[in-house]
Amino acid sequence: MSGVVAVDWGTSSFRLWVMAADGAILGRSRGPEGMAHCVAAGFAPVLAAHLERAGAPGGWPVLICGMAGARQGWAEAPYADLPAPVSALAAQALRLSPDQAGGRDIRILPGLARRDPARADVMRGEETQLLGLALTGHRGLVCMPGTHCKWARLQDGAVGDFQSFLTGELYQVLSRHSILRLGLPENGGPAPEEPAFVQAVDQALADPGFLVEALFAIRAGGLLGFAAPEAARARLSGLVIGAEIGRMAPRIGSEGMTLLGQQGLGALYLAALRRAGLDPRIADAETATRAGLLAAAREIWSL
Amino acid sequence: MSGVVAVDWGTSSFRLWVMAADGAILGRSRGPEGMAHCVAAGFAPVLAAHLERAGAPGGWPVLICGMAGARQGWAEAPYADLPAPVSALAAQALRLSPDQAGGRDIRILPGLARRDPARADVMRGEETQLLGLALTGHRGLVCMPGTHCKWARLQDGAVGDFQSFLTGELYQVLSRHSILRLGLPENGGPAPEEPAFVQAVDQALADPGFLVEALFAIRAGGLLGFAAPEAARARLSGLVIGAEIGRMAPRIGSEGMTLLGQQGLGALYLAALRRAGLDPRIADAETATRAGLLAAAREIWSL
Repeated sequence: MSGVVAVDWGTSSFRLWVMAADGAILGRSRGPEGMAHCVAAGFAPVLAAHLERAGAPGGWPVLICGMAGARQGWAEAPYADLPAPVSALAAQALRLSPDQAGGRDIRILPGLARRDPARADVMRGEETQLLGLALTGHRGLVCMPGTHCKWARLQDGAVGDFQSFLTGELYQVLSRHSILRLGLPENGGPAPEEPAFVQAVDQALADPGFLVEALFAIRAGGLLGFAAPEAARARLSGLVIGAEIGRMAPRIGSEGMTLLGQQGLGALYLAALRRAGLDPRIADAETATRAGLLAAAREIWSL
Repeated sequence: MSGVVAVDWGTSSFRLWVMAADGAILGRSRGPEGMAHCVAAGFAPVLAAHLERAGAPGGWPVLICGMAGARQGWAEAPYADLPAPVSALAAQALRLSPDQAGGRDIRILPGLARRDPARADVMRGEETQLLGLALTGHRGLVCMPGTHCKWARLQDGAVGDFQSFLTGELYQVLSRHSILRLGLPENGGPAPEEPAFVQAVDQALADPGFLVEALFAIRAGGLLGFAAPEAARARLSGLVIGAEIGRMAPRIGSEGMTLLGQQGLGALYLAALRRAGLDPRIADAETATRAGLLAAAREIWSL
């Protein structure tokens, strides 16, 4: 029997699956040792510990996607270009040198770049999920909520184009570091059904630029006693998510769209997409990652 | 001879002028002891030291504007409502109690609030500058660059309406705390003639909502080698300032507009306003503050 060890190595998380060639999961391990942790602690020991914990056979190759391939990661896997079918990603996977990899064949999938000075963009990790989605029949736009939300277009089984938004981080830096923090709760996030979230989504969907004149009003509304901290937080979240979706909604077209994940932040996006009159197909992020890694592994090692 | 001691007490600065009834400046003092400093160190000792340094006559009253009247300040001077003529501000000035004020008559001018839950807004300190401008013949919209830039409409010698933007702070938190910081210079700010600033201003003026999809691209452009850190900084600045002016430009009308200050941040606003085809009248911020304080003092004490 042959198989592969598939790894999703993000900024703040590590996930590993031992998979047979048919995709059956034979073992798994996960932990918080993302790139940020490993820059100091080293990548090889973290991988070795998880390989052992998941019972990975000694001779099986390892395929990694995500931030481990960033410039600050384990080894830089240069970005692939658009359009990116799975064959292109597989062909450009970076093989670690023997002294980095020990006795194994360990490769890191490249991220994707749009090398257009007027619309520069990059992703690392999401390209693997997108290929997994393409292989399971998804097409059209895919919305991938996160700190840096990505919208990608799947066409002919490849990633054709994409657009990143700073939305999640914009929410974070404003709620933690700007004057708005004085009027927000210290912890937690809004619920998708909160009236202040829904109202803000509707306003920003109708006019995304409204965001820039609505931010200070969140603080002023708190000072004047118009909004409780929870409502202020919901309003900030609704404004930034609504503005993002308001920019992308006109580009969705007749193929419809897919939302990757519907828990946590995904639930807020789902609610906001529905306010925009959209009915997204829902896909599971982890399933998509595994499908993409398995497809690339089959290309590389003819499993 | 009679006169007044006029004080502009901001978040991070203190300015004091000893003025005769005709506005002649007889003494002055300034320092970094803004509200943020005085919350811990006390307000009365700071004022006493500056009064002595400026040679203020013992019996003259003191009129203060700015953050000393905030809830976290020396004593809360509740916000006045719109429209706000100088007589209303003067009538609502808060007189400090004898144990706060020692032997002097010390009063703090109120800020302004728009008590509309759908468009809540507040200002403290700018209202005094605006009255100074109104008294010297300015009318129409006034743009007041700062951490929280204000646009106010002067009509019939009063502040009729206003709109605050978080623009300056948005630039600060993104450049210091978001992933964009990794691609920006550590210190300094852009120059108004930098091509990356001008191009970003033009794009955001034409479509303020473009800001939300252009932020991550600043980081991606740096990663892909398309933009040096200085250009990335100029682009971020141009996007946020351009988006703000793009929202306000349609509301300016035939009366034209005034820009308060043309140094530093003001120079960036001036360049961006000109890109929008506007030709603002330029006013000096400190002159406006003094004129507003003097006018209010004349109402209060019949100087």
